[in-house]
Order: sequence, then C-alpha cells, then structure tokens
Amino acid sequence: MSERVARAALSRLSEPGDVRLGVLVGRLGANRVYELLREEQDVAGVYTDVAARLRGLEPEREIERAAAEGIRFVCPEDDEWPRALDDLDRAEPLQDRGCRPLGLWVKGERRLDEACRRAAAVVGSRSATTYGAGVASDIAACLADKQMTVVSGAAFGIDQAAHRGSLAARGLTVAVLACGVDRAYPSAHRNLLDYISDTGLVVSELPPGCAPTRVRFLSRNRLIAALGQGTVVVEAAVRSGALNTANWATRLHRVLMGVPGPVTSAPSQGVHELIRSRGAALVTRGEDVLELLSPSGSFLGEVPRAPVLVTDRLSDRERQVLDAVPRLRPAGTDSIARTAGVAARDVSVVMQRLHSLRLVENTTAGWRRSEPPE
Amino acid sequence: MSERVARAALSRLSEPGDVRLGVLVGRLGANRVYELLREEQDVAGVYTDVAARLRGLEPEREIERAAAEGIRFVCPEDDEWPRALDDLDRAEPLQDRGCRPLGLWVKGERRLDEACRRAAAVVGSRSATTYGAGVASDIAACLADKQMTVVSGAAFGIDQAAHRGSLAARGLTVAVLACGVDRAYPSAHRNLLDYISDTGLVVSELPPGCAPTRVRFLSRNRLIAALGQGTVVVEAAVRSGALNTANWATRLHRVLMGVPGPVTSAPSQGVHELIRSRGAALVTRGEDVLELLSPSGSFLGEVPRAPVLVTDRLSDRERQVLDAVPRLRPAGTDSIARTAGVAARDVSVVMQRLHSLRLVENTTAGWRRSEPPE
Repeated sequence: MSERVARAALSRLSEPGDVRLGVLVGRLGANRVYELLREEQDVAGVYTDVAARLRGLEPEREIERAAAEGIRFVCPEDDEWPRALDDLDRAEPLQDRGCRPLGLWVKGERRLDEACRRAAAVVGSRSATTYGAGVASDIAACLADKQMTVVSGAAFGIDQAAHRGSLAARGLTVAVLACGVDRAYPSAHRNLLDYISDTGLVVSELPPGCAPTRVRFLSRNRLIAALGQGTVVVEAAVRSGALNTANWATRLHRVLMGVPGPVTSAPSQGVHELIRSRGAALVTRGEDVLELLSPSGSFLGEVPRAPVLVTDRLSDRERQVLDAVPRLRPAGTDSIARTAGVAARDVSVVMQRLHSLRLVENTTAGWRRSEPPE
Repeated sequence: MSERVARAALSRLSEPGDVRLGVLVGRLGANRVYELLREEQDVAGVYTDVAARLRGLEPEREIERAAAEGIRFVCPEDDEWPRALDDLDRAEPLQDRGCRPLGLWVKGERRLDEACRRAAAVVGSRSATTYGAGVASDIAACLADKQMTVVSGAAFGIDQAAHRGSLAARGLTVAVLACGVDRAYPSAHRNLLDYISDTGLVVSELPPGCAPTRVRFLSRNRLIAALGQGTVVVEAAVRSGALNTANWATRLHRVLMGVPGPVTSAPSQGVHELIRSRGAALVTRGEDVLELLSPSGSFLGEVPRAPVLVTDRLSDRERQVLDAVPRLRPAGTDSIARTAGVAARDVSVVMQRLHSLRLVENTTAGWRRSEPPE
C-alpha cells in the first residue's frame, strides 16, 4: 500500500492533529503505522481509540470516490504540499493536539502550494457587525488586488465577508473547513463554497463526509493560521474562535494583526486585547497588511497624511508674525510687531516672505491676511 | 522688584515658551533680565522683539488687577508650583519654543500642585464624533471617580467632553488655555470655564486679556502634556492639535495612550497612527488609564473575559467524546466511541464525568446531550 493511501486511511481513523499518531507516522511511516493498527497492535494507545473505525475501511476506494467528485488527497510527499504546514510540527502542541496534518483533502484546480505562497488569513467573529464585515471585505479585496490569497474558514460573519471581498476582486481565496470538503457548513454557504472551489480552493484534513465538531473547529484553526504568512483578526468577542486562530498565529511565529473598532462594540473587545496585550499589530487597511507581510521595504503603504499646507513650512517666528496680521482691518508693521512680540525690522523681512507665499496682502492702510491659495 | 513681579512682567512681554528668555531667566534671574530689558540691552535679541511691548508695562498693577478678579500668578518659586512643569526644561525644545513657563496665571481655589499630583490629560479633535465624545466623557468620569484630575484644553469636541465627564462625576478638572484665563475661548464655553474655575482650575501662561493665537495653542499643548502623568488621545484626525500634545507627552516621557475607533472614521486615523507607529498604548476604558498611570500593581483593571463555562474545563479528550454525544436520539457507548474515535472503555469513564457535570443524560436508549445548567 502506498504512503498516500495509508495516510488517507489514517486521516479517516483519527481526529485531526492527533500528536501521538503524528509522531508515530513521522517515525515509522504511515504505511507501517496503518499495518500495525490492522494487526491490532496498540502503539501509544492509538489502536484502542481507532479500533471501532477500522472495520470496513477501504482507503483506496475512498480516494477514488473523492476523485470522482473532484476532490484530491494532498500529502506532505507531494510537490503541491505547502511547506508552511510543516511549521506545525515545530510549534508546541496544545494539549495533545496540533501537529501537521496527515494530508489535506482539496477541492479546486489551483495548486495548493502556489495558492498559499503569498497568503494572509482573515478571520473574525461569526456575529460580526456591518462595520466589521465591511472592513474585512475591503481588506480582502485589497489583498486580492495585489495577488495575495485570502485564507479563511467560510463561517458566517467575518469569514464570509473576507472570502467575498477576495472573490469580488477576482482574487484567489482558500476556505479551510472543519468538515469534509464535500459538505457545506454552514449549509447556507453552499453557493459560496461552490464559488470558492470553482476559482480557488476548499480544503480540509477531514475526509469527505465527515461532520464538523467543536474539537475539529479548533484543529482547523491551526491550519488557517499556518497557511497564511499572517493572520488578520477583524472582530472577535472575548469567546470568539478567531482568538484561537490568533493564538496559533503567534505559536507559529506568523504576523498577528488586529483591526480596531469602537471600544463600545463587544465584537472589537477581543481584538483590542490582542493589540494591547498579545503584540498584535494594529492594521486599518489592506495596505497595512501588505506592508507587514511583504519583504522589508518591498511594499510601503502611504502613511495617512493631510496635504502639507503652505503655513506648515513657516518657521515659528514667521508663524508668530502671521498670527499677528489682522484678517479684516489692515495694520502697519509696527502694530504687527507689537502684537507678535517680534522686532519691527524682522517683521518687515517676514512680511515680504509671507507676501511671496500669498498669505498676506498689502493695502494702502497696511497689511492684512489673505486666504491661502488652494 | 520681586522675582514674581519681574516674571509677571516678562510673561506679558514675551511669547510663551521662548527658549532664549527662559535660558536668560534661569541664568540671571527674572529681575535682572527685566532690568536689562528696561535698560534697552539687547541680550540674545530679546529686547528687539519685546521693545514695543515694554512701554507702559505696569506688572505690579497687573497682578493687583488680576487678584481683584480672583486670578493669581503662580511662580516656580511657589510651593504651589507643579514640579512636573520643570521637566519642560529637560526636554528638547521644538525649534526655539518649549521651555518651562515663566509662571502660570491661575483661576480657582485649589492648589495647582495638589490638583496635578494625580492627573491625566484627555485630549482630542475639536470635530469629535458622538462616539469619541461619549468615550472621552466616560473615561474622564472614571478617572474622576478614582480621584484622578483630568487636564484638557477646553476646546470644542473631546476637550469639552473630558471636562464635562469629570465635572459630572464631581471630579477635579484643570483647563489650560491659550489665552488669558479671564477670557473664554471658544466663547461658547464661558459657562463651562466658569464651572471649571469654581470647582477646579483654569490656568494659562498668558496674562489676563491676551488673545489666543496659533503659536500660543501649540505652546499651550506642552503644558497639558506636562501637567498629566499621561496623555489620552481620544480622536485625532491627521492634522489635529491633539497630535501635537501627544508629541509633547512623548518628549516629556509621559505615558501616551490612544483610544481606537472605527478604521472608517477620519477622527480616529491619527490615534491609530499613534498606536501603530508612535508607541501609544491602546486604552478602551478609564480603568486602562488608571492601570497605566498608577504605581505598578496598585491598580489592576479587570481583563474583559467571558464567564468560564463548564465545557471550558474539559480536556481535549472529554471534549471529543462530548462532541460525539447526540443531541436528539440517544446513542450507546460503542456508537459514541466510534464517532469520537476514542476507546470504548475510556468513553464509559468520560461519560460518568460528563454526567456529573450534567452535560449528558442517561436514557434507556443510551446517552444524550443535556443543556448545560445556567
């Protein structure tokens, strides 16, 4: 039996990210581990757990059936395997779960490694606000526009907005599910998922047919964090699963980013906490994300600045004189000098400069402010 | 002539924060500097600038007239002088402006040093949003509630909201003006300023009668930053004067804080930039400000957390089993073990624990989820 088939078998037998199994496979190879399990050898207690699932398992047929539905099983041995996922074996596991997946079931024509070469995870609350959804969508569209893939979880709220933002900008987007890629969860996202697999990729470490469970959602989050070079959290209430993804981003040494919001908005609380205490970078636009995820200096977003006004270039002293020039009734140099607290002879020099900048005008009765030219 | 009278005279002659004059006074004393100016000695070019203002100056009478209006002139030699202002002479000046004030004209009965012993500056845009004004007011009220003085500039928008928030909580608030303390700027704030001077303090380094100018606003900002142990910027568009105050807070090694807002809101842009690039701490509540400004560990705000649920305390394995228990049609241990991918004998043990936590119920047909107790 090939490693691929053995890995597919093990992915059906075990729960995602099982560290015991991951270590065994790393040491003995998937084929040997599967063999041991079929011989009912209880290595590390794995057999006891998976025994009930072993009966009737037909991994070859499962791979064939998936292929008929346009689903392939991508293994670490494949060229298409995103090496970013290998970081999971270098990060410390959470309890006994969190290693590199045995393989990924993938739906969609793009190569997974290429799709994730430049990728950012954009995640957040299912109970997003209009504000949060709008910002997530804008950021995703901006990333798409610069050929950066948006990775998310296809959930309601922020995930959905992120996928849609990318799709609307004709971008590449990857949905990572906590169930089989043939299933739609939530079912209302059937069309969205179809659209994503048509133009991008839908992936899961769970074989087709598997249902989502809470533990699987948590395991799934590590893949979202691992596939992106960084994770953007848009809105996350204090119990949001997005904070779990953020946690994984940090463990995986990915760039963690947060979009702030009103301090009065519960869905922004978790993000503010990430920025305050967990070192998340504050981002407000897709450009900020691109700047943080691009090699140093290769993408520089513009710092939001108001246009420089003529008056910005004045020295303190010139400013002081200008302040003393009346707006309505003109005044002489002496009067201006007195008001400004600047020597009269200096005022004459400064007035010439202000005049050349068209900030003041000379009337027969003296100097007066003029509106700066636009 | 006393130093006090000489300082009052110089404060009338010069513009706020004039470094040339500040250095001279530090070296020779105010009395000697004033004497030199009256002898028309042009030390450091100061005479040339102030000559026009020297004529007719009567500092003693000016102090008397101010006293009749309930305004006193507080000098660095006075017990009441807030030593925090001396930091201005240790900070690097901006161009040729920014030293410690010659003195402060003060209206209100409280001692200035005591009022500023525990103080935070709360500043922001004049064109504040309802959101920003609400947050500024809430933060100020919270600070007032913990006996922390709120320092601000009595401008429209955030300043006003901060003063009002403090007043509403019967707190002590200090307004620092860019004009004489007998004047109301903006004039719509006449009542507000009266209320502040009745219960707190209105201060300015400009003598009574002086009009506000742009340069004076900028000089004033350094006093706001210096009088607080920290500066909270609530909303600040990219050209807001509040960013100048923030700049001074940093130069003076005060704690700089920013309140985030919607990324789509222009008045929050400047604050986000402060948090992102200028090291401002993100704060969302008065408690955050108190925590940052109080001696380490003496004030600890609660981190916003959702209540811990029974299910939060489950191990991954217990969680995995619970996920496999049906919500409607009960199932036996073997079926649950198969769904969970956990050994049947372990499932029996876990079910007992889940049952004791009232997460599952035992029916004649097997196990079923029960709603967790509230």
